[in-house]
Amino acid sequence: MDTITLALDVMGGDNAPAVVLHGAELALKRQRNLSFLLFGSENEVKSLLDLHPELAKVSQFYPTTQVIDAEVKPSAAVRGYADSSMVRAIQAVADKRADAVISAGNTGAYMALAMMILKRAAGIQRPAIATLLPTLKGASVVLDLGANVECDAEMLEQFAVIGAVYASLALHKTQPTVGLLNVGSEDLKGKDTVKEAAQRLRANSHVNFFGFVEGDDIAKGTVDVVVTDGFTGNVALKTAEGTVRLVVETLRAALRGSWLARCGALLARRGLRQLKDRLDPRNHNGAILLGLDGVAVKSHGGTDAHGFANAVLVAADLVKQQLKPRIIAELARMRGSD
Amino acid sequence: MDTITLALDVMGGDNAPAVVLHGAELALKRQRNLSFLLFGSENEVKSLLDLHPELAKVSQFYPTTQVIDAEVKPSAAVRGYADSSMVRAIQAVADKRADAVISAGNTGAYMALAMMILKRAAGIQRPAIATLLPTLKGASVVLDLGANVECDAEMLEQFAVIGAVYASLALHKTQPTVGLLNVGSEDLKGKDTVKEAAQRLRANSHVNFFGFVEGDDIAKGTVDVVVTDGFTGNVALKTAEGTVRLVVETLRAALRGSWLARCGALLARRGLRQLKDRLDPRNHNGAILLGLDGVAVKSHGGTDAHGFANAVLVAADLVKQQLKPRIIAELARMRGSD
Repeated sequence: MDTITLALDVMGGDNAPAVVLHGAELALKRQRNLSFLLFGSENEVKSLLDLHPELAKVSQFYPTTQVIDAEVKPSAAVRGYADSSMVRAIQAVADKRADAVISAGNTGAYMALAMMILKRAAGIQRPAIATLLPTLKGASVVLDLGANVECDAEMLEQFAVIGAVYASLALHKTQPTVGLLNVGSEDLKGKDTVKEAAQRLRANSHVNFFGFVEGDDIAKGTVDVVVTDGFTGNVALKTAEGTVRLVVETLRAALRGSWLARCGALLARRGLRQLKDRLDPRNHNGAILLGLDGVAVKSHGGTDAHGFANAVLVAADLVKQQLKPRIIAELARMRGSD
Repeated sequence: MDTITLALDVMGGDNAPAVVLHGAELALKRQRNLSFLLFGSENEVKSLLDLHPELAKVSQFYPTTQVIDAEVKPSAAVRGYADSSMVRAIQAVADKRADAVISAGNTGAYMALAMMILKRAAGIQRPAIATLLPTLKGASVVLDLGANVECDAEMLEQFAVIGAVYASLALHKTQPTVGLLNVGSEDLKGKDTVKEAAQRLRANSHVNFFGFVEGDDIAKGTVDVVVTDGFTGNVALKTAEGTVRLVVETLRAALRGSWLARCGALLARRGLRQLKDRLDPRNHNGAILLGLDGVAVKSHGGTDAHGFANAVLVAADLVKQQLKPRIIAELARMRGSD
């Protein structure tokens, strides 16, 4: 098995650098063919790395002097942060020294920098952020989750194409179905942009277009790929996360309501743990910056080590499955047959 | 206690007319001071009404010859459906023969007809659809849920005002907090329209403006009123509904996974029932068409009798609490101090 080299923005995220290093070590325990390029502050990272000897053995550390924190605007991030952990980690992929980059830092800055440094893949108009969400049938790809707050019909069409390529790898489906998120499943409803995108997708023989889907179709798993603009996708993702927490908290309170319920919860604890595992956002951590000339994965900023490890494994899997060449090939195939 | 007269579109909804009549009777059992004007097809409704003698006693039946089904466009609904159950039920409120109208029918048609027949309340630019959603802290008002798929900043500002009036009645809060749904809580993120609306709200002394909120803040109950455009609001509402179903189904499967888990579920069944009651969308059924010169409540199209009864009781409560005059007074007060 070939070694996969991953560049980590060790300073990115609410609980960096501790969670990043701990997460990388957890990932390494689950998958042995990983090596890491670590970018971060010498003061903070060096001493912490001593606590993770297994990780240290397969890592190279590169000291950086700047950190892009959550308040930095994307437009500011692309200037004046040349020696930040985020910029240098992305640069390692552009220089072919790493196969993929992972950051839990400022999403807007990460996207802007990744576009600037890695560039867009050939044929891509605008990259998008995609992730897998759990559904009644397994999981579905949802995009865009926030890279583009305003999208025109052509962008939505392209999200459908790159989302389908990602779904074919991540869900192992040969002809993944694609739905456009709308406020009604009838043809006549919704925004003009979305209706125009639907027309384009109906005419696009490279996409297995299902039609419009609604918000509840995400969790139902009606389609393999749900396409929407970055504003709506971000709200939908966070609404789903908030709702899971609401239900789980309400369940917890209900199961503590009486000694009988507490006994019941004790007996059912294995089942309840399965529920938690299946819906735990940490197990679905690792959004992809789809459409770049390089693999870039975004971890949730507030994640713990378990979640960060998951993002690392997602990146490794995309490298192994050759996400980037497959997207480029699919877009070329589409253009060729136009 | 004064009698409240409610006009029912008996033919509206997936399971009409049976669910509508059954729901009205359930509502009547919980609140005795109701009387009904029933609009629907003589053939279908008359015989069904014999099964609900309690309801029949406090109802007047008006035969109608047309039904506006789910496929009718709003633009078509406002012409050529003068003798439909929906039009005539709304007309009863305009004619002051009923205090409020309830329909589980075609939402777009209902909104268009209600605007045409009831007109907008004085000072209202565009009415919105609002509902209460369960949160970790109790419940919050969310609007717009789909009346306006595209919204400018001024519309969003007005939704904040009318949403706050509704929250003050429905949640019994004197200064309800209002948040604008966005993709980040930082000032610099998001759509231009949303940023402009935030500026307007910061300058509006009649609104207790909290700032931006994100999708997960809905379930957290961060604010009393969540304001968004009708496209995003509709997707968020349906995403939340779908997610609740996903968690509950996953829980159900987990609790059936072993005999131990089944025993546990049996012991904890009262707690589990509480969970279901609290999150059951039927218990939150009844969205308000806010900003009309009359009270109009929309029931979920696919609801059962229990859910329809809830929508009826929501309408009765808004009549009792004088929603309409209060909204008009608040808007007048705002204009007076500009």
